[in-house]
Amino acid sequence: MRLELVTIGTELLLGLTIDTNGAYLGERLGEIGVVVTRRSTVPDDPRAIAEAIAEALGRTGAVLTTGGLGPTRDDISKHAVAEVYGTALYFDDRVWEDIVTRFRRIGREPSETNRTQAEVPEGAEVLTNRWGTAPGLWLEGAPGLTIMLPGVPKEMRGLLDREVIPRLKARTSGTVVRSLTIRTTSIPESSLAERLNPVEHLLTPVTLAYLPSTRGVDLRLTAWGETPDQSDRMLNEAATRLETLLEDGVYGRGHRDLADVVIERLRDAGRTLAVAESCTGGLLGARLTSVPGASDVFVGGVICYQDAVKRDLLGVSQEVLAADGAVSIEVAKQMAHGVRERLGADVGVGITGIAGPTGGTPEKPVGTVCIGWSLGAQSTAVRITLFGNREEIRERSTQAALHRLLRRDYFWD
Amino acid sequence: MRLELVTIGTELLLGLTIDTNGAYLGERLGEIGVVVTRRSTVPDDPRAIAEAIAEALGRTGAVLTTGGLGPTRDDISKHAVAEVYGTALYFDDRVWEDIVTRFRRIGREPSETNRTQAEVPEGAEVLTNRWGTAPGLWLEGAPGLTIMLPGVPKEMRGLLDREVIPRLKARTSGTVVRSLTIRTTSIPESSLAERLNPVEHLLTPVTLAYLPSTRGVDLRLTAWGETPDQSDRMLNEAATRLETLLEDGVYGRGHRDLADVVIERLRDAGRTLAVAESCTGGLLGARLTSVPGASDVFVGGVICYQDAVKRDLLGVSQEVLAADGAVSIEVAKQMAHGVRERLGADVGVGITGIAGPTGGTPEKPVGTVCIGWSLGAQSTAVRITLFGNREEIRERSTQAALHRLLRRDYFWD
Repeated sequence: MRLELVTIGTELLLGLTIDTNGAYLGERLGEIGVVVTRRSTVPDDPRAIAEAIAEALGRTGAVLTTGGLGPTRDDISKHAVAEVYGTALYFDDRVWEDIVTRFRRIGREPSETNRTQAEVPEGAEVLTNRWGTAPGLWLEGAPGLTIMLPGVPKEMRGLLDREVIPRLKARTSGTVVRSLTIRTTSIPESSLAERLNPVEHLLTPVTLAYLPSTRGVDLRLTAWGETPDQSDRMLNEAATRLETLLEDGVYGRGHRDLADVVIERLRDAGRTLAVAESCTGGLLGARLTSVPGASDVFVGGVICYQDAVKRDLLGVSQEVLAADGAVSIEVAKQMAHGVRERLGADVGVGITGIAGPTGGTPEKPVGTVCIGWSLGAQSTAVRITLFGNREEIRERSTQAALHRLLRRDYFWD
Repeated sequence: MRLELVTIGTELLLGLTIDTNGAYLGERLGEIGVVVTRRSTVPDDPRAIAEAIAEALGRTGAVLTTGGLGPTRDDISKHAVAEVYGTALYFDDRVWEDIVTRFRRIGREPSETNRTQAEVPEGAEVLTNRWGTAPGLWLEGAPGLTIMLPGVPKEMRGLLDREVIPRLKARTSGTVVRSLTIRTTSIPESSLAERLNPVEHLLTPVTLAYLPSTRGVDLRLTAWGETPDQSDRMLNEAATRLETLLEDGVYGRGHRDLADVVIERLRDAGRTLAVAESCTGGLLGARLTSVPGASDVFVGGVICYQDAVKRDLLGVSQEVLAADGAVSIEVAKQMAHGVRERLGADVGVGITGIAGPTGGTPEKPVGTVCIGWSLGAQSTAVRITLFGNREEIRERSTQAALHRLLRRDYFWD
């Protein structure tokens, strides 16, 4: 089954708002064998919306729209769809009751503008929205199938997963597209390509795409099979081949964050972790605690943004701070050691660096980062140079700290 | 001038890769009066690309494409464009020399696959890419104007700003679109709409859009004027009207983060800040230190994820922890007080809560967050309930902590 997406919103064309729905939709639909063949973004203009929907239906017979269902006055997409289907809108009392109930549950009353959310094109099936007030719509007729979902990501995802996917699944058959992501870090995209180019033809019919980000390069494998099992088997074979080739540059599969991998490895090893952060200012702690259930492994940390905190709370030597500077191998080591001791953890990590945009010197340019690790009597540290803007350098510092922790064999012996 | 965007990449339709170029292009082009009327995303398929470009040219006479210019084997967009213009590709020696030079500068040799990057449609002007190997193209002919840019954000932005904007500026005239964002927090979108609906007509011809996110609702004002000055004057008047109406729900204009506003206010008041974070695990510190130059105001913090750290490093009373629980008004207060004292800061903030997905109880459901503030002898705390998933609750906790700090008059007396 082929389908086009039409995203409605002047805001999306003017900029500032980034559309994340398209990626989610493409992935979820692909999983059940629905291929998204085009995505169009149009302004809140009835003619542009009607045109885009009619064109899409002409090409594929199926369109899914997001946005344009909220209570604000510029929501005219339902009128546009009604026009394409040569039908009219009516006020649906049951939908209105749902909206009123939803509002009262949070102790409020809907306003007059909310009434437009209860307007439904004749012949459309209403998809109940449990996450917000704008219901989704499923409309079939001579022009084809139109599915309308709200633009708020949480509501769109809820309706897609609960209402749309099951309905579409029932009517799709044939090719099943599946994909699998291998997460790599510390290897630049061009080096990855050089290592993988010679074997890429061996992966056929599985295709390979490089998705670089601040945290590394994801390798996306895609397979078109006759059954989910067949696709998955092809993906697995290809993935294993790449993982063997790239060794410890690979840290996981799917959407899994490196912090999650590290927490699990520490849990398996029966070890706890504490962090001392200077230039990252809490970013590593935030990342580790974004993993649900991290509290049995992650004890806590100290954000030692000013040097006095490094000295007073972590016991970093004033002499070393004065002689080597706050961004140095020795300070990173003492931070890792200090936070491990003070917080009573098994493993300590310390990060100190120059994230910029100012603060660089010829000896220690912006991007200079020292990372220390401490376990028992052993403390080590490295000095690395990272590229990018302030946020990228901070992000890459946490990535390097986690990845090198994973690669240090002595933590896992 | 009206223009359509065509984004090329199967990856973008399959999901996982999110297109951030569209938003940037919309904003930058809008600034010089070029209105983006549609954005289409098509797969790496020659027919789909040629169709989308031809349709766009038919509607507006101008199209800007991103993506499909890299060295990988699926880059066929130049062929598609040549087809639309009824022209052929030739191998441009000068472009090839540029590519070779670029590679040698980083100590490498281009591969055979890079040669396709030197292929240029006849009649096209080459836009030199200083940030990567794929040059941009500017092609004018009977079908209209086609501008082709690489998809890598840094290269796209560089080429847009340096090569495309000046050329387009020279040919645009008339309307200038400008916009201004007012940042609000702590007021739900529907309440905002209720308060603003009665005055919205007074803003005409400035238009208003609501952009909700985890951190609050941005109000985007857009004005179409004859000169930048005229547009800006209209925007300013409208913004002042809304700011007066919404009072302290507004914390800033533009892209500025609330953390930046708080840092500046503290700096003006001559006060320093320290934070104690439990459920947010470093997120507030990370946010404060994402502000360049924060180090004169932000001293540091303690991530007290486990209760022992609250007790040992912050001096939170074991009795209170046992009696009230870690998520309580009194613990938040003691965390704020403790971190202020231990780190020698003027102001202390403490956050403790249940971010979920597990850990909730009937008395303290997921989303229960206690936030404390401490200044001198004064300590206060509140208990609030936040909605959303784990990350949203954490994010909203930092937002609430910062916003209420800003609103507490006694910090600024």
